[in-house]
Amino acid sequence: MVVAVLMPEVVALGEPLVQFNAVTDGPLRHVTYFEKHATGTEANVCVALVRLDVSCGLITRLGADEFGLFIYNWLRGESVDVSHVKFDPERPTGIYFVQRNYPIPGVSDVLYYRRGSAASALGPDDVDPDYVSGARVFHTTGITMAISDTARSAAFKYLEVARSKGVTTSFDVNYRRKLWANVDDAINVLSKALNFADIVFLDEDEANLLLGISAIDDVLRELRSKFGINRAVLKLGLKGSVAYWEGRIVKVDAFRVPVKDPIGAGDAYAGVFLASILRGHDVEKAMRRASAAAAMVVMVRGDEENLPREDDLRRFLEGYGRQVDLR
Amino acid sequence: MVVAVLMPEVVALGEPLVQFNAVTDGPLRHVTYFEKHATGTEANVCVALVRLDVSCGLITRLGADEFGLFIYNWLRGESVDVSHVKFDPERPTGIYFVQRNYPIPGVSDVLYYRRGSAASALGPDDVDPDYVSGARVFHTTGITMAISDTARSAAFKYLEVARSKGVTTSFDVNYRRKLWANVDDAINVLSKALNFADIVFLDEDEANLLLGISAIDDVLRELRSKFGINRAVLKLGLKGSVAYWEGRIVKVDAFRVPVKDPIGAGDAYAGVFLASILRGHDVEKAMRRASAAAAMVVMVRGDEENLPREDDLRRFLEGYGRQVDLR
Amino acid sequence: MVVAVLMPEVVALGEPLVQFNAVTDGPLRHVTYFEKHATGTEANVCVALVRLDVSCGLITRLGADEFGLFIYNWLRGESVDVSHVKFDPERPTGIYFVQRNYPIPGVSDVLYYRRGSAASALGPDDVDPDYVSGARVFHTTGITMAISDTARSAAFKYLEVARSKGVTTSFDVNYRRKLWANVDDAINVLSKALNFADIVFLDEDEANLLLGISAIDDVLRELRSKFGINRAVLKLGLKGSVAYWEGRIVKVDAFRVPVKDPIGAGDAYAGVFLASILRGHDVEKAMRRASAAAAMVVMVRGDEENLPREDDLRRFLEGYGRQVDLR
Amino acid sequence: MVVAVLMPEVVALGEPLVQFNAVTDGPLRHVTYFEKHATGTEANVCVALVRLDVSCGLITRLGADEFGLFIYNWLRGESVDVSHVKFDPERPTGIYFVQRNYPIPGVSDVLYYRRGSAASALGPDDVDPDYVSGARVFHTTGITMAISDTARSAAFKYLEVARSKGVTTSFDVNYRRKLWANVDDAINVLSKALNFADIVFLDEDEANLLLGISAIDDVLRELRSKFGINRAVLKLGLKGSVAYWEGRIVKVDAFRVPVKDPIGAGDAYAGVFLASILRGHDVEKAMRRASAAAAMVVMVRGDEENLPREDDLRRFLEGYGRQVDLR
Amino acid sequence: MVVAVLMPEVVALGEPLVQFNAVTDGPLRHVTYFEKHATGTEANVCVALVRLDVSCGLITRLGADEFGLFIYNWLRGESVDVSHVKFDPERPTGIYFVQRNYPIPGVSDVLYYRRGSAASALGPDDVDPDYVSGARVFHTTGITMAISDTARSAAFKYLEVARSKGVTTSFDVNYRRKLWANVDDAINVLSKALNFADIVFLDEDEANLLLGISAIDDVLRELRSKFGINRAVLKLGLKGSVAYWEGRIVKVDAFRVPVKDPIGAGDAYAGVFLASILRGHDVEKAMRRASAAAAMVVMVRGDEENLPREDDLRRFLEGYGRQVDLR
Amino acid sequence: MVVAVLMPEVVALGEPLVQFNAVTDGPLRHVTYFEKHATGTEANVCVALVRLDVSCGLITRLGADEFGLFIYNWLRGESVDVSHVKFDPERPTGIYFVQRNYPIPGVSDVLYYRRGSAASALGPDDVDPDYVSGARVFHTTGITMAISDTARSAAFKYLEVARSKGVTTSFDVNYRRKLWANVDDAINVLSKALNFADIVFLDEDEANLLLGISAIDDVLRELRSKFGINRAVLKLGLKGSVAYWEGRIVKVDAFRVPVKDPIGAGDAYAGVFLASILRGHDVEKAMRRASAAAAMVVMVRGDEENLPREDDLRRFLEGYGRQVDLR
Repeated sequence: MVVAVLMPEVVALGEPLVQFNAVTDGPLRHVTYFEKHATGTEANVCVALVRLDVSCGLITRLGADEFGLFIYNWLRGESVDVSHVKFDPERPTGIYFVQRNYPIPGVSDVLYYRRGSAASALGPDDVDPDYVSGARVFHTTGITMAISDTARSAAFKYLEVARSKGVTTSFDVNYRRKLWANVDDAINVLSKALNFADIVFLDEDEANLLLGISAIDDVLRELRSKFGINRAVLKLGLKGSVAYWEGRIVKVDAFRVPVKDPIGAGDAYAGVFLASILRGHDVEKAMRRASAAAAMVVMVRGDEENLPREDDLRRFLEGYGRQVDLR
Repeated sequence: MVVAVLMPEVVALGEPLVQFNAVTDGPLRHVTYFEKHATGTEANVCVALVRLDVSCGLITRLGADEFGLFIYNWLRGESVDVSHVKFDPERPTGIYFVQRNYPIPGVSDVLYYRRGSAASALGPDDVDPDYVSGARVFHTTGITMAISDTARSAAFKYLEVARSKGVTTSFDVNYRRKLWANVDDAINVLSKALNFADIVFLDEDEANLLLGISAIDDVLRELRSKFGINRAVLKLGLKGSVAYWEGRIVKVDAFRVPVKDPIGAGDAYAGVFLASILRGHDVEKAMRRASAAAAMVVMVRGDEENLPREDDLRRFLEGYGRQVDLR
Repeated sequence: MVVAVLMPEVVALGEPLVQFNAVTDGPLRHVTYFEKHATGTEANVCVALVRLDVSCGLITRLGADEFGLFIYNWLRGESVDVSHVKFDPERPTGIYFVQRNYPIPGVSDVLYYRRGSAASALGPDDVDPDYVSGARVFHTTGITMAISDTARSAAFKYLEVARSKGVTTSFDVNYRRKLWANVDDAINVLSKALNFADIVFLDEDEANLLLGISAIDDVLRELRSKFGINRAVLKLGLKGSVAYWEGRIVKVDAFRVPVKDPIGAGDAYAGVFLASILRGHDVEKAMRRASAAAAMVVMVRGDEENLPREDDLRRFLEGYGRQVDLR
Repeated sequence: MVVAVLMPEVVALGEPLVQFNAVTDGPLRHVTYFEKHATGTEANVCVALVRLDVSCGLITRLGADEFGLFIYNWLRGESVDVSHVKFDPERPTGIYFVQRNYPIPGVSDVLYYRRGSAASALGPDDVDPDYVSGARVFHTTGITMAISDTARSAAFKYLEVARSKGVTTSFDVNYRRKLWANVDDAINVLSKALNFADIVFLDEDEANLLLGISAIDDVLRELRSKFGINRAVLKLGLKGSVAYWEGRIVKVDAFRVPVKDPIGAGDAYAGVFLASILRGHDVEKAMRRASAAAAMVVMVRGDEENLPREDDLRRFLEGYGRQVDLR
Repeated sequence: MVVAVLMPEVVALGEPLVQFNAVTDGPLRHVTYFEKHATGTEANVCVALVRLDVSCGLITRLGADEFGLFIYNWLRGESVDVSHVKFDPERPTGIYFVQRNYPIPGVSDVLYYRRGSAASALGPDDVDPDYVSGARVFHTTGITMAISDTARSAAFKYLEVARSKGVTTSFDVNYRRKLWANVDDAINVLSKALNFADIVFLDEDEANLLLGISAIDDVLRELRSKFGINRAVLKLGLKGSVAYWEGRIVKVDAFRVPVKDPIGAGDAYAGVFLASILRGHDVEKAMRRASAAAAMVVMVRGDEENLPREDDLRRFLEGYGRQVDLR
Repeated sequence: MVVAVLMPEVVALGEPLVQFNAVTDGPLRHVTYFEKHATGTEANVCVALVRLDVSCGLITRLGADEFGLFIYNWLRGESVDVSHVKFDPERPTGIYFVQRNYPIPGVSDVLYYRRGSAASALGPDDVDPDYVSGARVFHTTGITMAISDTARSAAFKYLEVARSKGVTTSFDVNYRRKLWANVDDAINVLSKALNFADIVFLDEDEANLLLGISAIDDVLRELRSKFGINRAVLKLGLKGSVAYWEGRIVKVDAFRVPVKDPIGAGDAYAGVFLASILRGHDVEKAMRRASAAAAMVVMVRGDEENLPREDDLRRFLEGYGRQVDLR
């Protein structure tokens, strides 16, 4: 069988991970069973896109092991283009564990085993200018900037290529303290990345880290003035989200739902936001749809299972708040 | 062993189903484990009654298979009279799957495999006038009207016999869009059924469907004027329930609890309401007890496990809202 | 993203099913939890093939429901070509339940809910001569012959087309008593199918049903003389398997392993046998590899999870019987 | 509803227990999950009988607690006559825990919490001569003799009444070291009980305990000469079973199956043996059927779930040893 | 290996229990799986203390069975001093079952099997004046007073010794209706115990039982005037807690969290409060930390798993209410 | 609390690991749930020893994370001396995953995440001559030699110290291909280690690797002549084990049991063998006891749960092969 893959609309670069999510709450010492999920911030964005029928390809490296195969089959099953996924015979697939609701209720802790992973060997050899050139959007995040020097180089190279080819660049700051040797490195690199970003996603802590300010209007203005960013989404957690979008400021509330595991909310937001923009929704509707998706994924363990298809999204938006009746 | 069954106080007609409830939330694609429960709207009402020591018999057909035996033993174990349950050697027991909290938080979706089920072959042969004549109440629902032409005939026949023998008829509208070929059929049949009903249970959507109106007072008045119904309970979901009861309008609040699966709430309400009325409680108390039972069953998967015994009901009503102390 | 699918080496026709396998042994009445798996005899064969890097496409219909999506994503994830899978908006995806080790130890019982399924609507419209013409092998089974008249027509049409285009036809008798209205129908149809088959898989009971004989040599001779079949594999359960292959009779032992669920063994055998023949192994080696795969899949619930990749197969064949050491 | 229960064919006396069976093997220290089952030697016999359509009633006492209700509903669901089950408001339902495969492979250990249980208060008040008089067989075991002085009195009283009314008495020695203060008490009481028994079930250890001998022929002769027992079944574990039956000695092999938990095998044997004799099978066939049932129940956790219905028994006997085929 | 244990800072006396917590909510009749945990009010306090690096030893008796070993290893693993734990070869380890959220939402029911347990045989022989003399605090509760006469004697003896040696005595009233023959006994004994207590923990119901009053100020005054108690903590459930502490009244709010099982909250409170006081925190801070710990443990099944280490406590107090962000 | 630990009889050096064992069989791709266990070859030996009341201390390093705490508490709970366990604030605790029964029946595969683990930083600083000098035996394995250069140095240093102080050295070759850069390194290092070993455990493959021969007598002679080893145990898997012990050759059969996971068998053997020798059993009895323990642990997931206490061992040896009786 010969399969000729033509260009996906979105191309993303980053590390998928196997997530082992604690079946019961509390400190992992006392957790006996763990549930396996396919995750990773850019992979999550890809699945969010394809669920809404926006084609997406992921550039990455996986271990040539059972966990690598698991992720590969999962992504292919979801119809993410895996033509640019390579298997590394030496390095393992990155994994992590999730501790839920402890010590802080509603917050999850992660324990990574990703140092030296297959994806940390991403580098110049993985840059395929043709692949990204055919896309409408290139997406990566601050996590890819953090996992290794070579991965960072690849990320910057892709941003450059995308820019030069007129492909929109999308960047989620995704600052993870545990992945950086020190905070200054993170600030330097992430700031540099902002210079290449057309669309930026960040939260208040990240704004404060990179800009030293936290008032919403200031943040949006500073992103514009300092980095020339005209399309930024600031995520405010339960307070909702606010965007500066080509001259306009839009604010949207969050949907409150019972939270099982908040991990993956930001990726659901970014992916559904991008898909909605690409499908011609205005920014406010895109934000509302993105907020809905974020709410949907935090209701379960795993980041991708609850990413909505178009019909699910419609039903959520129509049915949310229509509370249980006595049928 | 000879067992001479004398007449149960309540006789119900309808299809029990095996429910396979998703162990984890989200779209069923991603659910790996399913939990088996005995359910079915009229069976639920029967169990609600017998838990409160009101005898009840169910007229139905089950497949001569493991799932039929499961339901049969379950009902018999609960002390529902199963003398009028027949086994069909050809047709399978009806089943369905429950998807929880997706896409709408707090709402469950169902996926039926009941077409051509044993109970869909219920028909004229299953009508035993003697059995219903000895009862105080006959109960059926709009679901039995929907599953097949023969089941519908049997239901109308039973309503007629009950009426002619002075047995109170109880009817829960239970409109399920998926079970009707088209909406008009449903409206015609369900409206016709209202003409035979002494006690009616319905919710706002059903009122709107059948009467084209939704204001509470209008609904209750219309039921009276159009169908001569003097005993109607309108379920309003989280807003509670309101009854028109022999000239009097009574409103009762709902009890708010964490919802695991809302399915079965209406049946718990109807069953406990009927039991309470039969045991001489006034309508307001009956509604309050019914609301409590509805709240109890939505806290777990499965429709019947949490149906209260008298002592449980008392403790709920006394203890509800007495929140967790630091013992 | 445009995906141009070129021709898979093998094309199969048949119904995938969602299998709900009992987590605990014994009669299903007493089983509380069920585990979901993607199965179906022809789908199993497809996955067996692609695991060994032989491309395969499945022609089928699925319900436009969560279970249909589950199977679709699963097959696509395994890299089965799903370009010829259609979704039926009305009919549900076929499902079945598995009861293990009861009442007969080591044997599983099935309870089907597949009547009126999406795949039962397979028919003339689903015949795409171009698709099969490009393949080296077309595979279907007696189950597809049994599920509906239209599916049977499609199957025969595909067999005819394949023959006329010089595509090798492979047929697994797969007689399932529960799927046929009566035994005579089965005999007539399955016998007719043998006339179109280049490669045939059958077991002793099936041989007895179709030929009225059971001695191995007689069966193989009769297949040849009566149906002109020069490539037949007779599966003998724990006694192994024997093939008549272009003039030669080959016998291979079975591998004995602890059995969790025997369902799927025959499909593993057929799929790995075909893959091995297509990759140039001689018939004895193909049988040995097929027997290994059959042993592997019976050790777990589910039919496809344990289908081996090339390296797994090699390790099984080298390591089988090298028993546990005290490491 | 009035239910007039007429006389069951078999009446049994003894304590049902809730069994908490370890989900994983090994010492209970390290077992995290336990699975609840309804058991108890005489209750097991009752369920074995009713599954084969021989009516049976159990005389016992249960705690007025959730575990008592669980057993009560379970037995009623199985159609055991529960008209002679009383609830004790003070004493709890007896329970026990099962440790499997440790330290001896294939053997289970039990940890009882039954001292002071509701059933230990069985006594003279529970003797209803009319109930037993209408039966064909009265059955009890050495466990009922051991749990308390009052239960023992009740057991002897019932044996006397049965004998005096011409009801066949059936006694399973069921010696449990943990339930007796000392061995001599056990020998005295159990020997006395043999004097009242028409049919006796025992194993080699019990024979040795009570008779001081173990050679099969000697045991059967001694039972006859010393206690006048003409119908005795000696269970030999994997070696099968041998009966002295009204002058004839019959030996039957055991069926070998993978053992999950051997507890309940003897009860399955006794119950199915009695049912078979009552239904007119000869002793050899009864033994063969009893052996099959014993094999069936040891394949799962729980004692009663796998007790066979007539059709299951037939299929086991026909299908046993017909090993897995490659379907 | 010789281990010389020097004196722990806190010594506690009481019965550890194995808790079997229902995996699913609702009446235990319908619960199939139970999860094993090590608990017991004084054991819980010990673990709360050692998690915060305050050494603690527990004086108790365990059955010489698997459950006794389980608790012993658990406590030793947590670094509770087990030098004064004895094994009883005759009596079993006490156990109990937990029913959650039924019939009252948010409240758990317990079903004890602890009568005649190993710990009920605690008595004068278990009093080791040297052990308690070296401690800073001796802690016991009203449960130890209730389980047997001998345990009660031991408790009073320890209180006396502690007082006479200048060791601070801490007493949690812990009134459990099910453990007392009648209410008057409880009042007499518990009131007597208050005379020996330097620090007292109680809730509103207990205040009402022992003092006949419930207004907070009155309770605290009465404890002082009647029993000379200058250090009392009154737990008010969701309303928080209030202390009279050496002349000062302090009130602290509770932390609201989703409750899975409220059992163990009071023990977490007492243990963390004592630890905090011993480590020099002022009473308000100790109460706040204790409230945090109480909130943490009710979020899971089991009483001890979620008891916080110092760092966990700090993170909870800083992060509580910082709700889920869209990362 | 001051705890003065005096010298354990055995001191071991090596890396404990958290094992995530697949709940279901087959390739890990398809495994959803994983069960957590505390393992590691030397830790396993320690627990084997303390279960038989031989005191043992483990020298190691753990990550200052939840998994490190889990192992620490587990070992302390089992009464392993943890006074020489250090926590590393930077490096994680080593972990691995276990795939069972695939692709080779009865054999487990492991997937390590231990590179750069806390224990890999074991080194010269961890050598405490006083600690080992007080012991009777020092034990380590080829795995400690393989995990890092520093760990290897520490191991050799301990072997030297032990030898110089007259402490018996015990060495299990434990060759793990995945942990060595190349085979030659392994041969060099492991051969060197043999020079320091008084007691050696190895299997046939390891003998072949290090000595180039496999005939039992040759292996034992060569160990003696080349390395001066007078106490060697050669493990032969299901064929049993053979020892050369101070001039005598002893052979012992293996116990055959159903295998769930063979990992840990060798450690059980070594630990129970050493304990038995230290307690004065002769070599044949020690081997028989060691074989029993090896059989016990392979019957469950996890390496340490089924390690026997003295009474368990006695019961296994008496009861093994006494097959299930029909009680």
